[in-house]
Amino acid sequence: MKNFVYDRTIHFRDTDAAGVVYFANVLAICHEAYEASLVASGIDLKSFFTGNVAVPITSAKTDFFKPMFCGDRIKILLESNLISSNSFEIKYQIFFDGEPQKAIAIAETKHTCIDSVTRKRISLSQQLLQWIEFKQ
Amino acid sequence: MKNFVYDRTIHFRDTDAAGVVYFANVLAICHEAYEASLVASGIDLKSFFTGNVAVPITSAKTDFFKPMFCGDRIKILLESNLISSNSFEIKYQIFFDGEPQKAIAIAETKHTCIDSVTRKRISLSQQLLQWIEFKQ
Amino acid sequence: MKNFVYDRTIHFRDTDAAGVVYFANVLAICHEAYEASLVASGIDLKSFFTGNVAVPITSAKTDFFKPMFCGDRIKILLESNLISSNSFEIKYQIFFDGEPQKAIAIAETKHTCIDSVTRKRISLSQQLLQWIEFKQ
Amino acid sequence: MKNFVYDRTIHFRDTDAAGVVYFANVLAICHEAYEASLVASGIDLKSFFTGNVAVPITSAKTDFFKPMFCGDRIKILLESNLISSNSFEIKYQIFFDGEPQKAIAIAETKHTCIDSVTRKRISLSQQLLQWIEFKQ
Repeated sequence: MKNFVYDRTIHFRDTDAAGVVYFANVLAICHEAYEASLVASGIDLKSFFTGNVAVPITSAKTDFFKPMFCGDRIKILLESNLISSNSFEIKYQIFFDGEPQKAIAIAETKHTCIDSVTRKRISLSQQLLQWIEFKQ
Repeated sequence: MKNFVYDRTIHFRDTDAAGVVYFANVLAICHEAYEASLVASGIDLKSFFTGNVAVPITSAKTDFFKPMFCGDRIKILLESNLISSNSFEIKYQIFFDGEPQKAIAIAETKHTCIDSVTRKRISLSQQLLQWIEFKQ
Repeated sequence: MKNFVYDRTIHFRDTDAAGVVYFANVLAICHEAYEASLVASGIDLKSFFTGNVAVPITSAKTDFFKPMFCGDRIKILLESNLISSNSFEIKYQIFFDGEPQKAIAIAETKHTCIDSVTRKRISLSQQLLQWIEFKQ
Repeated sequence: MKNFVYDRTIHFRDTDAAGVVYFANVLAICHEAYEASLVASGIDLKSFFTGNVAVPITSAKTDFFKPMFCGDRIKILLESNLISSNSFEIKYQIFFDGEPQKAIAIAETKHTCIDSVTRKRISLSQQLLQWIEFKQ
């Protein structure tokens, strides 16, 4: 998916005792954006995440530039790219709503398609290839 | 707040290895509905949750009638009631989107207003009293 | 399991921006105690939670008497009781380590045994019946 | 801290509907190891995470080589290194208990010391400098 935008409010549960979003939750929020982009391209989440084909995340990284507080409204800009016949990456840029000039965090996840029983690599489905190239 | 409705999609993070929403996350999702209702009545979440006045949850309960899967679209109907000058309760009914006849889960939280430093009970603010009675 | 004790330190992730443990996480911490009690009676968690027989939680409740902070050392006292041939309940009492006189929180979960495919009620396994009555 | 080892069992809450640990939770589990290492060097967690000096994570990354299931017993090997007068990094290697030859995941977090009010960079405390170099 190219140029997909996900709107999100920071929930109380996302925060920790330092008063801001707990670092690992930023990746969880990015994963919500990924799920929303799958739905936007017509993919059924329930079968996608529990079928015979799995697309586990093999690596993830994130950089934080500004803290996010409970109630903050953010936008996540998502962009997916093919890496190989069985893998892709997603890049996420997070902005405060109304401040599109300067990302407050960025993240990246890499995903590899496998058979969920044998856990061997298999080619990405036509559905996922379409999702990767889909322009919002 | 009376008759407040919160729309939510079940995220992958909400689920566990049994394939359905992890039980305690149902309460976390209800808390999101509570936060959205506060915003709807004009309350600023950041100061609400980190100010000198705190409104901790003193008890919570929930009953589950049907499992929720990743991607399921749900609606939470929220209703708040005053218990005393310093406490209130919230009742939540959760439905699958488009199936308003039969709740798939219900929940209840009780909240008591305290001074966040001394942790002594204090009266609910005017702002919270208005939120409790606000009809959506 | 009778008189099972689970030791736990409050993690940063358990807390929220109010500086104390997020309410729903208390139930998640109790569930950890439940898992540890299953292991203590010889049950394999992986097959227990993903097999053809499931034991979903049908209701949960919790009361909070004192806040828990990051780094606090707590003890959870767990007690299970049979309700019917296909259901049981667990009662949890949470104490600060070294202060066994006064619970800082209590909780209760009810569990019903079902076939994970048909989701119909089935009798508790011999293994679970033994776990329920096991005296630590 | 050098050569610090943290033992952990994978909890049900750590998993998702794909049956294995949810990717972002691996970072949360690594953060538990970090907290345990702070305690091991005599640091009080409550004041550490809520005081006037904060040490937020500015970047995090993780690579996954094998899935982790509920009940799996893992060991996290933690190693901290000074980056500058106000920042440090932690490297984490995760192993299945009893299989120390081959990491099942690795992770890295970078931390910068700031004044929690002004959010300006300040030098690491003597206490943190000692923790960084402490050999377990």
